[in-house]
Amino acid sequence: MLMNSSSPIGIFDSGIGGLTVLKEIFSKLPHEHTIYLGDTARVPYGIRSPETVTRYSFENTRFLSARQIKILIIACNTASSVSLDAVREHFPVSVVGVIEPGAKAAAAATQNKKVGVIGTEATVKSNSYTRAIHAIDESIAVFSVPCPLFVPIVEEGWTDDRITEMVAERYLSAIREKGIDTLVLGCTHYPLLKPVLTKVMGSSVRLIDSAIETARQIRDTLTSLSLLNGSSGPARHEFFVTDSPDKFLSVGERFLGRKIEHIEMTKLEMEV
Amino acid sequence: MLMNSSSPIGIFDSGIGGLTVLKEIFSKLPHEHTIYLGDTARVPYGIRSPETVTRYSFENTRFLSARQIKILIIACNTASSVSLDAVREHFPVSVVGVIEPGAKAAAAATQNKKVGVIGTEATVKSNSYTRAIHAIDESIAVFSVPCPLFVPIVEEGWTDDRITEMVAERYLSAIREKGIDTLVLGCTHYPLLKPVLTKVMGSSVRLIDSAIETARQIRDTLTSLSLLNGSSGPARHEFFVTDSPDKFLSVGERFLGRKIEHIEMTKLEMEV
Repeated sequence: MLMNSSSPIGIFDSGIGGLTVLKEIFSKLPHEHTIYLGDTARVPYGIRSPETVTRYSFENTRFLSARQIKILIIACNTASSVSLDAVREHFPVSVVGVIEPGAKAAAAATQNKKVGVIGTEATVKSNSYTRAIHAIDESIAVFSVPCPLFVPIVEEGWTDDRITEMVAERYLSAIREKGIDTLVLGCTHYPLLKPVLTKVMGSSVRLIDSAIETARQIRDTLTSLSLLNGSSGPARHEFFVTDSPDKFLSVGERFLGRKIEHIEMTKLEMEV
Repeated sequence: MLMNSSSPIGIFDSGIGGLTVLKEIFSKLPHEHTIYLGDTARVPYGIRSPETVTRYSFENTRFLSARQIKILIIACNTASSVSLDAVREHFPVSVVGVIEPGAKAAAAATQNKKVGVIGTEATVKSNSYTRAIHAIDESIAVFSVPCPLFVPIVEEGWTDDRITEMVAERYLSAIREKGIDTLVLGCTHYPLLKPVLTKVMGSSVRLIDSAIETARQIRDTLTSLSLLNGSSGPARHEFFVTDSPDKFLSVGERFLGRKIEHIEMTKLEMEV
């Protein structure tokens, strides 16, 4: 491999959600070069089968690996849930998903050993957060609930909205009644809903933002591999999508909190 | 071509929505054999670029054409909007989309020459209903609005729900104020929202259900081509999906209003 400490961090997501992770990378690791791939031609992954999501993850990883990345972030909860192990097995690159960092933070945060997890259908069905939390502490009770309307609501921009509150109330009332003290936002779109979620859950419930935890994990891993970029020059950020760059730009800048300078369309080399 | 009057009707959609069209085919043409393809590995089409949707339409058409269909229904408003002409040009099969039948019915129904159209982002952006209605009568004013939350709401099963009413109110109040007397349901999921839409728009606004109009058009076209199935034996219905047959079954039976006996997974021969 031709990579070294000045190589970029590779990051893929099914679409724009992973930009919440990238935003935290920018904040914690401002000197790192990055390449982001949003698979907008096949978004969303959350409604697809594990086999199909794994196939898509392989194609995304192949695309980024060809660009000499030094570490790969699977910034999509669904893809992390169902394909992280397979990607690690098949590609000779360090891989960090968003599940383990979120699970670790949740296990550390809970006082009463009752944790809630919200995510897409696929993430919840995969049980991956429950398994990751139980690998740390088996005595923690984990209550999961799929929230399929949250992603389109965030993409509509209805983040501070009476309708969104009612939808959140519908999805969350059952896990609130379980008395959880910690809630994992198990989808990269959800950090934009933090104010609504706090309103519905109460301010005593700690919200775990996987994006922040993942960026922390990346910093730790790069440090331990001696792969932090030593240069303090300006970082280079590349963006690729498989469809609709215009929409990615307009919605993406809201997620990223800054301008996206340059974006390219790519057709992945798709397996049949 | 090896097709004749006993050949099946081919029908594709991005997912399950097209089953509302198939349901009307079953009702109006009970002796016709059918093959349905739901491209559930790449649903939804409504958020994708015209180029990508056209590529997907070609792959779906190739799959069905190989099965000796006598006529093809593009039972997806987005795919009809952006790819119908290209499919007609490239494949030697009669093709009926869902736009023209809906536009024709709307033009015939409106008294005050004010028509509303609701659909996905891609359908609305394509302006295809406006063009099709204006091709019939240029003096009709057409008001379109994208309703991206309606599809996930229908898939959640929240068809009779206070939240859905509020979302409909948000999307529709502007076109209600235009004084339209006719509203085209420009997405195959929307017929399941008829009660809510009537509540929000008022019972004097005529709802145009593209599924019903398309089935009528198919009957007329097959009649004029002398391709109606003469046999009165039991009809054969095949279902194919590109992903997650289980979910298709559970949600699909609600759309179709009857059991789906047999379903197969297929990988399309995808173009790169």
